[in-house]
Order: sequence, then C-alpha cells, then structure tokens
Amino acid sequence: MEDLRFMGLALREARAAAALGEVPVGAVVVVGGEVVASAHNRRELDGDPTAHAELLAVRRAAEARGHWRLHDATVYITLEPCPMCAGAMVNARVARVVFGAFDPKAGASGSLYRLLEDRRLNHRCEVRSGVLEGLCAAELTRFFRALRQGKGLPKPRPSARDRED
Amino acid sequence: MEDLRFMGLALREARAAAALGEVPVGAVVVVGGEVVASAHNRRELDGDPTAHAELLAVRRAAEARGHWRLHDATVYITLEPCPMCAGAMVNARVARVVFGAFDPKAGASGSLYRLLEDRRLNHRCEVRSGVLEGLCAAELTRFFRALRQGKGLPKPRPSARDRED
Repeated sequence: MEDLRFMGLALREARAAAALGEVPVGAVVVVGGEVVASAHNRRELDGDPTAHAELLAVRRAAEARGHWRLHDATVYITLEPCPMCAGAMVNARVARVVFGAFDPKAGASGSLYRLLEDRRLNHRCEVRSGVLEGLCAAELTRFFRALRQGKGLPKPRPSARDRED
Repeated sequence: MEDLRFMGLALREARAAAALGEVPVGAVVVVGGEVVASAHNRRELDGDPTAHAELLAVRRAAEARGHWRLHDATVYITLEPCPMCAGAMVNARVARVVFGAFDPKAGASGSLYRLLEDRRLNHRCEVRSGVLEGLCAAELTRFFRALRQGKGLPKPRPSARDRED
C-alpha cells in the first residue's frame, strides 16, 4: 500500500517533467513514512547530464538531512535507474529502491546490469520493481508518441532516457 | 604528452582534496586542448553522495558550455571511475576518459565493470588507463595511511572511494 502511494507521488513528478518537455521520469525519497525529497528529470532545462529524477532527489534528500548517507531511505522512481543513478544510490547507501517501468536499453537494475544488488560493491539495496508499471510506462509512451508526431524523431524507438540520440 | 600534462592537473586537484580531509581524487575536463572544468572530491564537505571529482567536473563543464552533451571532451581522473561516475560520463557523451590508478573494489572501467565501453548502451567512451598511475595511487595510499595512524579506521584497507565504511 505504502509503495503504491509513494509511486503515485513519483508519477506526479513524472507528469510535471512531461509538462516541461522533459522525458517523464519522477522520483521521491521517503524516510520513516515521510517524503524528504522529490524531483523530476531536468536534463534539458538545466543542461546537466546528471539531472535525472532520482539523482536529483537523492542529492536533495542528502541536503535536507545534512549527510550523504541515506541508509534509512527508500527511493521511488517511475523508471528503472540507469547505471549512473543506480551507482549514486549505492554510493548513498540507500536501503531500498522501488521502481515502476523497466528500461530495456539502459536499465541497471535487471535489464542490463544488477548494480543495486552487486555483492562485490560495499552496499546493496533491496529492490522492488514493477510497481504501477503500466501507468509509469504509459507516461513515457505518451510522451514519445507526441514527440514523434510533433517533431519527427530520427529513431522510431528512442531509449526511455534519451529522446535526442 | 598532453595526457601526462592534464593528468598532472587532475593530480593537483586530488592533492587539494587531501588538504581538505577528503579522499584525494581529482578530475579535469579538456576540450580542444583547454581545461573547461576541474574538481576534486567533496563528498564530506558538501554532504553529497554524488560529489565525486569527475561527476562535479562533468557538471561544471556542462554548465560552462551551456549543454549537457560533452561529445568533444576528454575527462582526466586520478582514480578509475565508480559505476555512478562512469554512467555519468556515458550519459554526457564524453569522447574520451583517461584515468590513473585502478580501483579494484569499485572501479567500473576494467576492475568490476566496463561501463564506458558497453556496446549495449547508446554511447561508448574511448578509454586510457594507468596514466601517472604510481603518483595517483601514492596520493591515496598516503592519505589512508595518515588516516589510519591518526584516527584508527575500523578496516585496514578501506575502498579508495570510501574511507568511512
């Protein structure tokens, strides 16, 4: 139940990204049942290659809590994290990661890699996938369909993370 | 020759980190023979789990250039990038990555993963490793030795990236 509720909030962030013309991915960070940070993808707006939803949310959560270590946090993301974001969550010692849709082209928590659960690294995150998967994926599908119809993307199926290549 | 010179600048950044009590890792971003950004590890100072030298340098370079895409950039780092940082450089479309010392516990460019050269991802970076390796590694060794002698770390050989766990 809690997971559904917080994924709903992440989905709201994803929709806020779409409204700004950004690939719709959203994230919230929860500690003790409270949202301590939320963010959506802002790569184009900020011109920042690291401005993915969950990386921004993790940075904001660390800032809010005054320490880089988020060992009691759960991060909710509408899309499977890429290697950068999965690595950031391992670095931040995030306890648990819950995501919605899978990203077969860049996902690092089941699709291409399993970075969050690699026993060779000095931290592992508990992972739950597929929460509100249909709704999370539908946001992306709707966004890319509108983009193709409006602008004519060069590739028929761009990576969920990357509408420009 | 160019690689040695720029790695020397990255090493100077690493020393600046050590002087501040941070794990000595430094990075510079070079475009067309000019340094466009440089940074050192600031995780403890900023309380930011993503404040690794090369991630900060990549963000600063994107800011300086006004775009997230750094397709003509070379990133010099004194230590092999972790998964987060390797992922960030792939996301930023960095052309080339040159690093000094290997990180057997968390390295994502040869040690544990080869993220920079994964053909499944939508970008690959050219990689050169081991430039000024001895000097880069010596900075880390010196730092951790001093830390052990001064504070008594719980583990005899902490990961190069992680002096607290």
